[in-house]
Amino acid sequence: MLQRFSYSSLHSLVQQVFYKMGCTDEDAKIASDSLLSADTRGIDSHGVVRLSGYVRLWEIKRINPQPRIRIVHETPSTAVINGDAGLGLVVAHFSMQTAIGKAKNCGSGWVSVKNSNHFGIAGRYAMMALPHDMIGIAMTNASALVAPTYSAERLLGTNPIAVAVPSGAETPFVADFATSVASKGKLEILQRKNELAPQGWAQTKEGKITTDPYSLEKGGALLPLGGQKDHSSHKGYALGAVVDIFSAVLSGANYGPWVPPFPAFLPLPENMPGEGIGHFFGAMCIGAFRPADEFKRDMDQWIRRFKSAKTADGQPQVYIPGEIEQAMESDRMANGIPLSEPVVEDLRNIAEKFSIERPLEM
Amino acid sequence: MLQRFSYSSLHSLVQQVFYKMGCTDEDAKIASDSLLSADTRGIDSHGVVRLSGYVRLWEIKRINPQPRIRIVHETPSTAVINGDAGLGLVVAHFSMQTAIGKAKNCGSGWVSVKNSNHFGIAGRYAMMALPHDMIGIAMTNASALVAPTYSAERLLGTNPIAVAVPSGAETPFVADFATSVASKGKLEILQRKNELAPQGWAQTKEGKITTDPYSLEKGGALLPLGGQKDHSSHKGYALGAVVDIFSAVLSGANYGPWVPPFPAFLPLPENMPGEGIGHFFGAMCIGAFRPADEFKRDMDQWIRRFKSAKTADGQPQVYIPGEIEQAMESDRMANGIPLSEPVVEDLRNIAEKFSIERPLEM
Repeated sequence: MLQRFSYSSLHSLVQQVFYKMGCTDEDAKIASDSLLSADTRGIDSHGVVRLSGYVRLWEIKRINPQPRIRIVHETPSTAVINGDAGLGLVVAHFSMQTAIGKAKNCGSGWVSVKNSNHFGIAGRYAMMALPHDMIGIAMTNASALVAPTYSAERLLGTNPIAVAVPSGAETPFVADFATSVASKGKLEILQRKNELAPQGWAQTKEGKITTDPYSLEKGGALLPLGGQKDHSSHKGYALGAVVDIFSAVLSGANYGPWVPPFPAFLPLPENMPGEGIGHFFGAMCIGAFRPADEFKRDMDQWIRRFKSAKTADGQPQVYIPGEIEQAMESDRMANGIPLSEPVVEDLRNIAEKFSIERPLEM
Repeated sequence: MLQRFSYSSLHSLVQQVFYKMGCTDEDAKIASDSLLSADTRGIDSHGVVRLSGYVRLWEIKRINPQPRIRIVHETPSTAVINGDAGLGLVVAHFSMQTAIGKAKNCGSGWVSVKNSNHFGIAGRYAMMALPHDMIGIAMTNASALVAPTYSAERLLGTNPIAVAVPSGAETPFVADFATSVASKGKLEILQRKNELAPQGWAQTKEGKITTDPYSLEKGGALLPLGGQKDHSSHKGYALGAVVDIFSAVLSGANYGPWVPPFPAFLPLPENMPGEGIGHFFGAMCIGAFRPADEFKRDMDQWIRRFKSAKTADGQPQVYIPGEIEQAMESDRMANGIPLSEPVVEDLRNIAEKFSIERPLEM
């Protein structure tokens, strides 16, 4: 059973929680905007369902509610930022703003971030570039769930990449995807439905391909985009590795199997080589390449050509990356965000813990 | 039957051909270095086997041997370059050097290129960044062979991405991969062996999944990395689209189904919106983020951890992207480059056409 709640009621609740955790007014608002962007765009696994996870990380002091986020090194087009263990939702926002500022000054800006935490959806930060007529890029590493090709061990996170591209009259192009075939959340959905996973999503802890949706719980791993070797899983592995290197080796964060896990009850890895988790952001000013109106005219033509392609039998249309999420956002801003009963219960418990009055009224 | 030829003998032949096509001494050498890098690294589909294709494009005047390659717009960290229909092998080299120069001055450099031609292997240009202690990035679009998710039409090329990352004592990380599951070349190998393709490499012209290795010849398409929708082909589609947009919409080259084909006998697409094919290059100075020695120490640890991972049953080791190509290069520089009889015949014919004496002596 799903119940719908208005954006403003959820935003108000989340903002009060972050405020009561000790965030400034401004940071609580930024963090809420970032978190809710997942719910509005239909990435339900990364929105308010995660709020209790953030609270638990704050309780064990892995999230610092009043971080001194700072640039530790920079050039005209690059920076490394230390997130001071702040909410990733806030650190990422600051870091993307830094990238955009640099792009205004010298054409592009590239920011690698250490000592941060989970930042919600990558697409949120990439899209911050759009109103500035810039291409936005965002990526993050995450704790290891994915086995490289030929590995029996988990060494990479699902390490997402987002790229947002301005358009003219058309809905902007916004790609936002994990570099694994499937996510943990998709396996959990199959568990609830009592269904098997498609061949090529996961492997056992010995590295054998499996359709068992409980494979992760049994020490197995997700597979990199591509799936198996004869479907070029080495390309998904390389892509996830690039995200890890840009986010963490370039900034001094933890990488590979040393990235700290999101669930607060899991122990930290031993001998961590860096600080916190890492992100990477980029902004490229369109005008630094060619006039923005010419670019947008071509981008519109690109979008229209792809959308109007002859479809494979039985398919209604070819979708532009971000098109479905945009439609979802329109629906949810108008009609509310649907939440399942356990998520509503979880939010009410958090509200009670923080003595928030009248939570979740429509 | 394979026969081995020394690097220097092949290089000498190729350089003379480019010189006789009208290239300057310097450009003929650059083009030969670029082309041969594919043969030495074991990417046999992109090396000397392509020489006759370049010659045919030159014969129909689609390749300009004496291009005025020029920066048409720039900022401190970005540029658009017009390749003046030159050899992609030369245009790409100039463009990557431009990116590296900008990275020296302001931390990073990003160059989008129009009016170019096929450039060989992307990894070659990404690797030019390594001696400068920079991360190198290279990508290119190509004529359409890949169908986006749900499309029955080919709208994207195999659009490769390469990323090269400096290391300390270890072999550098060099990822270089097409954003489709498989290449046309891999289907052709199956044709010669009379074998079927794995499910998820290709589709028919109606958009049905097929194992027919002749599917491209019959109007079908390659599939984006991921393969089918339930294995996240929309991610490979998004990735190939990003390469197309960065390479061509950002520069003013042709994009999507309008990219001119490599085979000279194929007609150009109608109503082409841009100039030639497009590339995109990036260089990020490691020192613009953190001290290079610290980065390389961490990168070495990253590489060692991945290489020493527990392997899946029956696999000898986990490979670092670029590791196999590096071993191939060592072997071929020492023992020669193996060529099949038809390729040798093709090269001898080219040598005769250009009156080159004593070609291909060991």
